Amino acid sequence: MRERLPMRTRSKRTMATPLLDPFADLAEKLRALPGVGLRQARRMAEYLGRMPQEEVEALVRSLRALSESLARCPCCHRMFVPSQNQSGETQYCQLCGDNTRDDTTLMVVAKDIDLLTIERSGTYKGRYFVLGRLLTFSGATERGLLPLAALSERVAALPPGGEVIIALGVTADAEVTARAVSEEITPKLPPGVRLTMLGRGLSTGTEIEYADPNTLSYALRFRQPLVSPTTEEIQPAAGSEE
Amino acid sequence: MRERLPMRTRSKRTMATPLLDPFADLAEKLRALPGVGLRQARRMAEYLGRMPQEEVEALVRSLRALSESLARCPCCHRMFVPSQNQSGETQYCQLCGDNTRDDTTLMVVAKDIDLLTIERSGTYKGRYFVLGRLLTFSGATERGLLPLAALSERVAALPPGGEVIIALGVTADAEVTARAVSEEITPKLPPGVRLTMLGRGLSTGTEIEYADPNTLSYALRFRQPLVSPTTEEIQPAAGSEE
Amino acid sequence: MRERLPMRTRSKRTMATPLLDPFADLAEKLRALPGVGLRQARRMAEYLGRMPQEEVEALVRSLRALSESLARCPCCHRMFVPSQNQSGETQYCQLCGDNTRDDTTLMVVAKDIDLLTIERSGTYKGRYFVLGRLLTFSGATERGLLPLAALSERVAALPPGGEVIIALGVTADAEVTARAVSEEITPKLPPGVRLTMLGRGLSTGTEIEYADPNTLSYALRFRQPLVSPTTEEIQPAAGSEE
Amino acid sequence: MRERLPMRTRSKRTMATPLLDPFADLAEKLRALPGVGLRQARRMAEYLGRMPQEEVEALVRSLRALSESLARCPCCHRMFVPSQNQSGETQYCQLCGDNTRDDTTLMVVAKDIDLLTIERSGTYKGRYFVLGRLLTFSGATERGLLPLAALSERVAALPPGGEVIIALGVTADAEVTARAVSEEITPKLPPGVRLTMLGRGLSTGTEIEYADPNTLSYALRFRQPLVSPTTEEIQPAAGSEE
Ligand SMILES: [Zn+2]
Ligand SMILES: [Zn+2]
Ligand SMILES: [Zn+2]
Ligand SMILES: [Zn+2]
Repeated sequence: MRERLPMRTRSKRTMATPLLDPFADLAEKLRALPGVGLRQARRMAEYLGRMPQEEVEALVRSLRALSESLARCPCCHRMFVPSQNQSGETQYCQLCGDNTRDDTTLMVVAKDIDLLTIERSGTYKGRYFVLGRLLTFSGATERGLLPLAALSERVAALPPGGEVIIALGVTADAEVTARAVSEEITPKLPPGVRLTMLGRGLSTGTEIEYADPNTLSYALRFRQPLVSPTTEEIQPAAGSEE
Repeated sequence: MRERLPMRTRSKRTMATPLLDPFADLAEKLRALPGVGLRQARRMAEYLGRMPQEEVEALVRSLRALSESLARCPCCHRMFVPSQNQSGETQYCQLCGDNTRDDTTLMVVAKDIDLLTIERSGTYKGRYFVLGRLLTFSGATERGLLPLAALSERVAALPPGGEVIIALGVTADAEVTARAVSEEITPKLPPGVRLTMLGRGLSTGTEIEYADPNTLSYALRFRQPLVSPTTEEIQPAAGSEE
Repeated sequence: MRERLPMRTRSKRTMATPLLDPFADLAEKLRALPGVGLRQARRMAEYLGRMPQEEVEALVRSLRALSESLARCPCCHRMFVPSQNQSGETQYCQLCGDNTRDDTTLMVVAKDIDLLTIERSGTYKGRYFVLGRLLTFSGATERGLLPLAALSERVAALPPGGEVIIALGVTADAEVTARAVSEEITPKLPPGVRLTMLGRGLSTGTEIEYADPNTLSYALRFRQPLVSPTTEEIQPAAGSEE
Repeated sequence: MRERLPMRTRSKRTMATPLLDPFADLAEKLRALPGVGLRQARRMAEYLGRMPQEEVEALVRSLRALSESLARCPCCHRMFVPSQNQSGETQYCQLCGDNTRDDTTLMVVAKDIDLLTIERSGTYKGRYFVLGRLLTFSGATERGLLPLAALSERVAALPPGGEVIIALGVTADAEVTARAVSEEITPKLPPGVRLTMLGRGLSTGTEIEYADPNTLSYALRFRQPLVSPTTEEIQPAAGSEE
């Protein structure tokens, strides 16, 4: 209760000092997380700071559990949870362990979520390599952070007639990264192995009026035989998920 | 001044009647314009209704002038302003009159603005045909509103080795329209003339994580030789124009 | 048809000239309408320019009909549709003609739509004066465009105990306009007539965390006796209309 | 490398099983954080799961440090960092320890960030009480989670002429909480102590045309003497912080 404060304590502070925000430090750390802005970081910090200590410990355990249980697949660099009961033997992820997949194509993606998105689309049956990150447009010197040696090894093992597909998206960061990858692996491509990228063109929802020149240029250069969709296939544009 | 109202007028209205909005009718008409919602139509109506009558007349003159000066190009169905000094001779638009363009390719677009967008991208040197509109997903019976006979005539005149490129975008309306166009012109295609569409794939700004399955499927099917952009070509994503 | 172009016409244009956009002029005029941006204006112009001439005439008639049928109420400056059958007698709008309303309060609003919004809220039973527009923050010299003489006459006729309520919103334009109005009418206020403005404070949807200092300052200065809402009155925040 | 997988492992998986997402669990936990949606939670989880274990430990230390160093001020329930060198004596936060503040007014806020926002506005010099959270509109039975007993003690100690100001915002959650607080503390108010709330009305940026009926009703009921701002005070509406 304010009224019970001993006089001594009160008299110590007669000058106004700027109000400290104890959550400021954690907020700053949380801003490093993807998509977290200034205000959200502050709100998350306050939420975490006010959580009962046992809930904080539960979150810590969950975070550590993930961090400790996850292993990087030595083959595709995906993160996965190895099974426990194996005697020191090297383990591979579910996809690399699936011998029904096509060993002649290798798709290079940036993140695990990209791999999952492509898997869910059901259109690809080959192998993957996950870079773990994109370079940034403004920091192209981070190239050393990419697992290019491991990727080169995968590339070098591809059979003739094989293909490396760069699937990094169409952003400035993606293109900087694609160039770095391309420069690295082009000399390692075995004879008869092609280097391609996902086709560029008009994506779902594009209206010609708003299309950028670059996309139009690709769409024109790589035009396709007209596939007339059946009535059932045409869907009104769906709203975004969130 | 309220106080000077004759008593007679006042006594007429002793019951509350719902307040009439004199702008409601014009607002409803303005909603037919593309991209105009309920609130904007009401604001535009109030603005127009409050405009001095001479400004209204100026706008009417400008609208009529456009409407009267514009002619539909008999060749490509674009709207253009014919020159005045010709003696009854059929006139063609600037593009159709440009004999440096490639007569073997015919691109079918929905609107004049689409044609302008493609011209500004500098990637196409063939001929055009402007449908004037898209069919709507929910009203596919409007097919009679499309100038399909005129388009068929253009198609039939293409030389062997020619190509018709459908460039209507990737929306439900665009696909319904593409199907209608395709059904109509496929029987009219001279031997050796192809029917294609603008290539589909990843457009500028796409992140794999957020790409829809349909776009991924096209991007994978029509993958392209990797063109490693030079540093100068890579640009951070630009904001939209407005 | 492209093929029928006389050789003469073709040979005239061997140099590429930039493509003219015949809709550019009307598009520029349409940008003057409230809320219309560059792209929307272009789309509206193309829509209007492609409309059959008889539809253009219908729109012109509708616009002229509004413009001609509307009259400014000499009392409140609202736009309204006078009845036809009166012999030259001055007519007033529905609100000014309603003798059940409170003659002692005069609310000054910017636009007819503001008046309608307040009427629909059912909270005000006095009289109105519609300025027709706001001054702009950057063009405060437009003061002559406001009907300040007519407003002053209304103000001067208010009875003792009366009140003028400024209801122009809380934007930079609204505040510039409120100052101009205030400077003009303060000297005209009869004795015992107050000049007020709509209360400022937290509006529906405000979270303290995101409130600006100015709003907080007003909300604190003009704090109100707590009215504890009943369960029925509390509503989850509704989405916006459009 | 895919090719080195022992045959045994490969032959185990001949049937397609749905791909597991090892980040799904952590993603679900992260969704509990304020403002974190499905997709952002997934991205944060992947980021955290891929972080080197030493960085994970650094984050854990920082989170624990905050959680352990923070104490709830026994007076205002704010979270603060007590100084280390005191011998078991009860410590109060910077605000409660500031004896220049007005002891007669007590403002009730939901979160620490609300308190900071009000302090930064520089408009309030009294005392605070932080509830720590709002009730939710759909779960009004959580009332037991609010520190209402501690608040009642603060209220009961207010001197005559004092005031309790409810400052919880204007949302459905805020109003449910305000009612709970009001029902609890009204019987505890000493004689001559008022219960108020932050004033409601038009907030910065409001245009009359878009104001909701409830806000208009408050703005009209609590109208204020017109304060004509000076030119310097009027600012064009600023964009939001992020
Ligand atoms: Zn793997
Ligand atoms: Zn033409
Ligand atoms: Zn009137
Ligand atoms: Zn405290």
